[in-house]
Amino acid sequence: MNTAHPALMQKKLINDPHDVVRQSLEGLALSHPHLLDVHYDPHFVRRIDGPIKGKVTLISGSGSGHEPLNTGYVGQGMLDAACPGAIFTSPTPDQYLSALDAVCGDQGALFITKNYAGGVLNIGMAMEMAQEQGYIVESVLVNDDVAIDDPKNRRGMGATVLVEKMAGAAAEEGRPLNAVTAIARQVAAQSRSMGVGLRSGASPLLGHPTFETRPDMIELGVGIHGERGRYEIPLTSADRITEMLLNPILDDLPLQPGDRVLAMVSGLGGTPLQELYIVFRHLHHLLEARGVTVERRLVGDYITSLDMAGCAITILRLTPELIRLWDASVRTPALWW
Amino acid sequence: MNTAHPALMQKKLINDPHDVVRQSLEGLALSHPHLLDVHYDPHFVRRIDGPIKGKVTLISGSGSGHEPLNTGYVGQGMLDAACPGAIFTSPTPDQYLSALDAVCGDQGALFITKNYAGGVLNIGMAMEMAQEQGYIVESVLVNDDVAIDDPKNRRGMGATVLVEKMAGAAAEEGRPLNAVTAIARQVAAQSRSMGVGLRSGASPLLGHPTFETRPDMIELGVGIHGERGRYEIPLTSADRITEMLLNPILDDLPLQPGDRVLAMVSGLGGTPLQELYIVFRHLHHLLEARGVTVERRLVGDYITSLDMAGCAITILRLTPELIRLWDASVRTPALWW
Repeated sequence: MNTAHPALMQKKLINDPHDVVRQSLEGLALSHPHLLDVHYDPHFVRRIDGPIKGKVTLISGSGSGHEPLNTGYVGQGMLDAACPGAIFTSPTPDQYLSALDAVCGDQGALFITKNYAGGVLNIGMAMEMAQEQGYIVESVLVNDDVAIDDPKNRRGMGATVLVEKMAGAAAEEGRPLNAVTAIARQVAAQSRSMGVGLRSGASPLLGHPTFETRPDMIELGVGIHGERGRYEIPLTSADRITEMLLNPILDDLPLQPGDRVLAMVSGLGGTPLQELYIVFRHLHHLLEARGVTVERRLVGDYITSLDMAGCAITILRLTPELIRLWDASVRTPALWW
Repeated sequence: MNTAHPALMQKKLINDPHDVVRQSLEGLALSHPHLLDVHYDPHFVRRIDGPIKGKVTLISGSGSGHEPLNTGYVGQGMLDAACPGAIFTSPTPDQYLSALDAVCGDQGALFITKNYAGGVLNIGMAMEMAQEQGYIVESVLVNDDVAIDDPKNRRGMGATVLVEKMAGAAAEEGRPLNAVTAIARQVAAQSRSMGVGLRSGASPLLGHPTFETRPDMIELGVGIHGERGRYEIPLTSADRITEMLLNPILDDLPLQPGDRVLAMVSGLGGTPLQELYIVFRHLHHLLEARGVTVERRLVGDYITSLDMAGCAITILRLTPELIRLWDASVRTPALWW
């Protein structure tokens, strides 16, 4: 029995909490029968048309609960496979290995993962096992969250979506593994993110929010695995919150007048589009006021934390090549153009 | 000062609550500069490439708070313009008239609106004024919500998206006004919807949920304007809830083995994709068990009620022509293929 205050219980459209990941994958497969194929035990989602000869293979792994990341980014121009772990739990090495066996072409594979201790450990084991089996593999760690001071310990956030899109486009162009890996690392290196939580998401296994926020307080620098923010601050205006998210990003990723960026505002799962547009509006104004051009943009739920209310801003400094890779055709459940 | 229990306050990423609609439109415009143009006072969102000669003009109106409906459906293959009212409040006749002046081509215009008393009144006035000014206009009322017994009083729900997509495709093909209107009415007539609310959304003007749900209860047959459901029932499994949404739809739209449908599960704004897939999974199984083929599908936030937790199911009985119109190219913020 749950001990949280009844008013704080979060009701969910689920069956047995232990079946959430599997049943959600079954629904994803039924929703996109012409794009995806889902394998169970171990779980991975793969492009229906793979493996593809002459193309570097991209495989991403992440805990579940961040949808559409990563399972929604499988398809032409992005990932060959995604390995969804348990809720907020990194996938296991056997998931990566099974996915690799299923989708790897003849140009080697790049593993993409967010920088979390468990994820790094598991991807390392998967890399070793893959190499022992004769696969040529590389990996990229995404660590864009400036809420953590030490870059080595920074968590992966929205830059993951951008890395997957741009490295995916480079792979689709037939670039070799070292070039695709370099693109992925460049995008990761030129991206910074910061998030705010207004209300914690609730894991289906818990049934109530991971943490409680006081009525007039919000969490700045929040993680996407149910971690509290770095700072608890009083609820303030969307414009002021936007500034508090952008400033630490710009402290760490200095932008000059004339620079061009991709600006992303991702909802965390429980915030309506209406509010995300209000944040993007001010973000756009702030960047333009510095002489920075918002050359590309993405507003919506792209990397979430179950039903957390709040959003995260990601800024990527663009180059002409990255713009071209961003604009390249993509055919996935969550990005399509 | 708000009198709701502090734990029930819903924090929002907004500035002045009275600026929410306008600032959100500003953010929408900045997010899609190559697709949309927004006009303020009166507010309407228009295709950047209109008016288009030789094409029937489609204009839809709705209160704000249902995003992406309708402003996210403006673009090639769908709407020429959308008129967003205040939160949960139908747009005024002058919004429709200004939009019509801005985007109407030479083939007349079809107004699309959901069946609510205020909306019907305003669209009627707009039609009269447009006709007085010499415009050829038709209208279609969408009333797919089977939570209301009397079809005349049924509210418009998810079928609105389908009407706009298919009538939009017919207009893009160059079909005349009477044919586009007939398509719109056919889609509306062959669609039924029903929704469930787990937690009410909160209007920015109120700051707290429109209604409170008891800890173990949910609202079945909920509206999308903050109305309670038709029935308050105990929280149960996603599969059981899916059955309780589908059964009244099938009572009203009898389907035979061999029938083909479009099945849509729209989140209401505060429910993660993970849960929508779980609902879609069982919905798909239930339909297939009856010999009904789920020929097309749409799972995500397509018609929302601010940050309400819950979802709505819409079923449309398809014909080969409707499938063709659904598959036709569309280029809008929220639907793109």
